[in-house]
Amino acid sequence: MSALKGATAPIYFGSFIVTPQHRTSHKHSLPHNPLTFALVNLKPILPGHVLVSPRRVVPRVTDLTPAETSDLFLTVRRVGRMVERVYGATSLNIAIQDGAHAGQSVPHVHAHIIPRKAADLDHAGGMDAIYDLLDGDEGDLGKAFKNAVSTEEGDQSIEVGNGSTANSGRRSRFPVVDNDARKPRDEEDMRTEAEMLAREMENEPLD
Amino acid sequence: MSALKGATAPIYFGSFIVTPQHRTSHKHSLPHNPLTFALVNLKPILPGHVLVSPRRVVPRVTDLTPAETSDLFLTVRRVGRMVERVYGATSLNIAIQDGAHAGQSVPHVHAHIIPRKAADLDHAGGMDAIYDLLDGDEGDLGKAFKNAVSTEEGDQSIEVGNGSTANSGRRSRFPVVDNDARKPRDEEDMRTEAEMLAREMENEPLD
Repeated sequence: MSALKGATAPIYFGSFIVTPQHRTSHKHSLPHNPLTFALVNLKPILPGHVLVSPRRVVPRVTDLTPAETSDLFLTVRRVGRMVERVYGATSLNIAIQDGAHAGQSVPHVHAHIIPRKAADLDHAGGMDAIYDLLDGDEGDLGKAFKNAVSTEEGDQSIEVGNGSTANSGRRSRFPVVDNDARKPRDEEDMRTEAEMLAREMENEPLD
Repeated sequence: MSALKGATAPIYFGSFIVTPQHRTSHKHSLPHNPLTFALVNLKPILPGHVLVSPRRVVPRVTDLTPAETSDLFLTVRRVGRMVERVYGATSLNIAIQDGAHAGQSVPHVHAHIIPRKAADLDHAGGMDAIYDLLDGDEGDLGKAFKNAVSTEEGDQSIEVGNGSTANSGRRSRFPVVDNDARKPRDEEDMRTEAEMLAREMENEPLD
């Protein structure tokens, strides 16, 4: 039994908490990101599409403390590097809709990280179809957040938008692509991915 | 004459460096962001559209050190708060195209910060037209970066993409909006905005 260090706080993926307490000591222990968690996505736009979010529920980046801001983006950098490696990608889209008028649907800061590779969206219309898909994806985040926070804090849920409030009445000049065709995954799929990614984070250097 | 502190390193806006050395001591001195600079935009998508970038020229977020990562996003948070206030906005789009396959045109990490308000893109097709405009904007960044770094480091320029290399051959399913209609601004316009924003940063709390 190894002593637990402060530096081995868990990374959450989705509603599935994989704590270092469940694991043996590892050369690269889980990162010290006490203020941040990561979520797998109910309807990923592309494989490895994850969200990184502060634990404290605030709507805007400016509401974060400097420590939370640093922790969030150090986690974005590290989780991004991990998903890029795991999903064989070569680039990342990183996007924050910071407020309802920027398209935010859930009033809890969240950074989208989407692994990209050459020609990955040719079937959907090209490289920039990502943005239409990203927009559609916002509508599905409410449930993911609710699950994550419910698990983290017993059975408490946070106040989240219903996923369409901020979007209602919004006019989009883009035809709807295949958002509706993207099927929500089942719990088992999400749990399996979350656990795989949590293990992969152990192989990811801290810096 | 007040002694200069390390905490008063300049924020750069575009090719226009406004250093605290040129100013009298101020209650809220310029921030200590030694590793980061900000740029005004040659062709802003919306008023107050700025870029925040690490001083060190690296293409990917993962190439940044943890200190550079923290400094970059603390600056994103603080500059974002400032432009939202100055331009009377209510939200921000924050986006990083991290690598060529994510749409990055200039191989130097840069975060777009775009102030948003209700109905601000109704004329262009709605809230999400931002993404098409953002994509078009990438093609104009080469010159802005070149100017900025030339001024900062004497007459040296960095290696930048020509602004269309990464885009060449890319298929977009989106009709071109009014990217071509957006006129590049002249030097005087950009200098005036840069100086105004640099002054506004002095009114922005450090935290």
